[in-house]
Amino acid sequence: MKLYEQLANDIASSIQSGVLKRGDKLPSVRQASASRQVSAATVFQAYYLLEARGLIVAKERSGYFVSVGANSISNTPEPILNHEIALTNVDMSHLVFEVLESIRNKSVVPFGSAFPSPLLFPLVRLGRIMASAMQELDPWASLDNISPGDAELRRQIALRYLIDGLHVTADEIVITNGALEALNLCLMAVTRPGDAVLIESPTFYAALQSIERIGLKAIEVPSHPKHGIDLEAMEQAIKLHQPKACWLMTNFQNPLGSLVSSDKKQALVAMLAAYQIPLIEDDVYGELYFGKQRPAPAKAFDHAGLVMHCSSFSKCLAPGYRVGWVVAGRFAKHIERLKLTTTISASVPAQVALAKYLQKGGYDKHLRQLRHVLMLNQMQFIQAIERYFPAGIHFTVPQGGYFLWLKLPAGVNALILHQQALKAGISIAPGPIFSAQLRFQEYIRLNYGHVWNSDIEHALMTLGQLIKAQLTPV
Amino acid sequence: MKLYEQLANDIASSIQSGVLKRGDKLPSVRQASASRQVSAATVFQAYYLLEARGLIVAKERSGYFVSVGANSISNTPEPILNHEIALTNVDMSHLVFEVLESIRNKSVVPFGSAFPSPLLFPLVRLGRIMASAMQELDPWASLDNISPGDAELRRQIALRYLIDGLHVTADEIVITNGALEALNLCLMAVTRPGDAVLIESPTFYAALQSIERIGLKAIEVPSHPKHGIDLEAMEQAIKLHQPKACWLMTNFQNPLGSLVSSDKKQALVAMLAAYQIPLIEDDVYGELYFGKQRPAPAKAFDHAGLVMHCSSFSKCLAPGYRVGWVVAGRFAKHIERLKLTTTISASVPAQVALAKYLQKGGYDKHLRQLRHVLMLNQMQFIQAIERYFPAGIHFTVPQGGYFLWLKLPAGVNALILHQQALKAGISIAPGPIFSAQLRFQEYIRLNYGHVWNSDIEHALMTLGQLIKAQLTPV
Repeated sequence: MKLYEQLANDIASSIQSGVLKRGDKLPSVRQASASRQVSAATVFQAYYLLEARGLIVAKERSGYFVSVGANSISNTPEPILNHEIALTNVDMSHLVFEVLESIRNKSVVPFGSAFPSPLLFPLVRLGRIMASAMQELDPWASLDNISPGDAELRRQIALRYLIDGLHVTADEIVITNGALEALNLCLMAVTRPGDAVLIESPTFYAALQSIERIGLKAIEVPSHPKHGIDLEAMEQAIKLHQPKACWLMTNFQNPLGSLVSSDKKQALVAMLAAYQIPLIEDDVYGELYFGKQRPAPAKAFDHAGLVMHCSSFSKCLAPGYRVGWVVAGRFAKHIERLKLTTTISASVPAQVALAKYLQKGGYDKHLRQLRHVLMLNQMQFIQAIERYFPAGIHFTVPQGGYFLWLKLPAGVNALILHQQALKAGISIAPGPIFSAQLRFQEYIRLNYGHVWNSDIEHALMTLGQLIKAQLTPV
Repeated sequence: MKLYEQLANDIASSIQSGVLKRGDKLPSVRQASASRQVSAATVFQAYYLLEARGLIVAKERSGYFVSVGANSISNTPEPILNHEIALTNVDMSHLVFEVLESIRNKSVVPFGSAFPSPLLFPLVRLGRIMASAMQELDPWASLDNISPGDAELRRQIALRYLIDGLHVTADEIVITNGALEALNLCLMAVTRPGDAVLIESPTFYAALQSIERIGLKAIEVPSHPKHGIDLEAMEQAIKLHQPKACWLMTNFQNPLGSLVSSDKKQALVAMLAAYQIPLIEDDVYGELYFGKQRPAPAKAFDHAGLVMHCSSFSKCLAPGYRVGWVVAGRFAKHIERLKLTTTISASVPAQVALAKYLQKGGYDKHLRQLRHVLMLNQMQFIQAIERYFPAGIHFTVPQGGYFLWLKLPAGVNALILHQQALKAGISIAPGPIFSAQLRFQEYIRLNYGHVWNSDIEHALMTLGQLIKAQLTPV
């Protein structure tokens, strides 16, 4: 991260935590430059970023002030904490498919998509590396790359954990057809049909679909929009319903964008270990942090080998290559075998190309650029929402990823909005697809992982009008 | 197929059907040339092939005779027809994994492998095509290729069905991560845990592993080494146990090498339709025929949309690319969605490269070469078995694929032989891994899909000695 981004983030944190309040004057560029020991240009760029983000406003000849809107922006929607924690037979895949299929049309503005824009990835360089990897391909790779997967790719992945301070051996890693397959295999490894699985609410709909497909029951534990799952409620749920597994997203959760702190992750892992419950950790957004460093996964606090850490290259490097993995702890052998009997191996050309890309270096540089674009996109989105959406919209500002989780004003229905938006050529992800009980009727998830342009701004304006229209009595 | 191969096959059929008996004299080269209206060279080549195959012997100055061994070669092992058709909770994956893992060592002669040699495939040309496909890759392909899969690849696959006389639309095709995923998705689409599934006995162990993993029960119906599943026993089993699905391999079955005739396929499909039971047809070896044309799949006789025809490029073109498909009839939409929630899509580079390969042409030429090599390999194997194995070995001569299913002499145990062979650096596939009830203790499957050389011949000699040793009282 560049210096001015760091400075902007520091100031943004001060605003969000309330140290700087609305209307407060910021230090002048000269003052800040002296006190922070950075160049005036750096301060200027940081202030520019914060202005773009709508957190501060420049007043002519007076300097910079915390914007009035800054507080509403960071106005986190109240978590739904008081709902009864029930055991639910999941039966909502149909709604999810309807929504997903309706938004596949390429002419639709993809705010409802789960994928960032493919234009953000180094596909040309990857293609060149794949071309050269195919020239050198050992014919026997098709057999060598069978589950648990390409040895060099597993070594490269283990190295990346090491850089982040996690000791993971290649033996513990199973290569999969994307993170989704990893998550599904983990779930199959530790449950039998009829078992209960603890998930967060709201949760990524694919977890609900997996639970439904395998014939499991869901225990939905409320999750805080900023801080993630509620540990007290979680322990209650464990005592009440004895889940056989827990499936969570700890970093920049989909759809919330929430981030579980390291302390809380440690407590989470310890609690699950005490009850001997395996944790299936979905960490596909961990590399997309806007802060100073990659947030540690819960796996970092795992001493019992009970955490299965799932991730992939699909959201940060190589969409469509379908290469993911799981660091599977004590379940590694079992999952290696499950992979073998379900899909044998991930595609060999994709495995060897990614191994070679990681060997060559350049991944971290790409990730820095990607994070920067996503952070700027987030600012643009927030600014546009401030401008075009009616009052009474609540959302948090995630510290990574590419999703915004919005609470609509009272009286606005997300599923109706989804239908109306679709007619206007815009997709959104309506809240109910993130809950086995079809909760979150007044929430939507917006994807800001697409390159900002006037079409996107116009679509946000239209969306704002549709929300306003639902508020206006006919 | 070349003319002399056709002629050789015709004569081999006459021998196998008993029209030509051991010791019978064949027409002279001149006679045959006149009666068959082919050149003398063609007859000579055909006789040479048949001699290599051990079916005929040349006697000096007397001409060619059906060899004494010919009858033992075509001596089909008796099908096990009289076992009780039971409903079995499958619990034998462990044995299968033990065997599969023991044979992954690259220094082992791979008679136990399920894969043909990767050296038989046009990997260099495929690699070049992939390299050029990656240069032209539309960044949005990662989204366009999501289940049901790449549109051009599905169109190319539909075209191949059309050439074989089957009207299949691209809409009915779902691209999968190899045939194994297709088969698994089909099974998930039409069963729930606890349901019964009808399979053949012996059966491909992956079917048993899938049934075990999903928590289904197996109904094993005896299959004839040459002609495939027993329809009468099948109907009995249906009446008795009401299976929710039937999973079969109709062409060059693994492990038997059996081929179900078109008439029998038609009767099979009609029977299943009468009971409204979906057929999951595994047809990954259909392109590897040694006869005049590709045997039709059972899908060709499907009027009710109940047959799900699964195949892939893994065994005939692109091992390790992990691209397969299912023509799923009335289940197409359901399977498209199951694919989406389990692994999203097959690897995009592999999908676009294969679409481009099929567009460019050359697949049929490659297949002709591949079939020729496999047929010659089969002859070499049979000759070596005749030479090195003790009397009392029974096997059929499959008309395609790359497996031989051998019945060992009474008293020889396949699992013990597997252990002994492994110590001698040779893998075999012991019979019990092909049965939920661990039957076929005196059978082994040998893979002849590896390039013939003196190591392979030597390994067959060693195997023969090990079998003989088990026969010799200590």
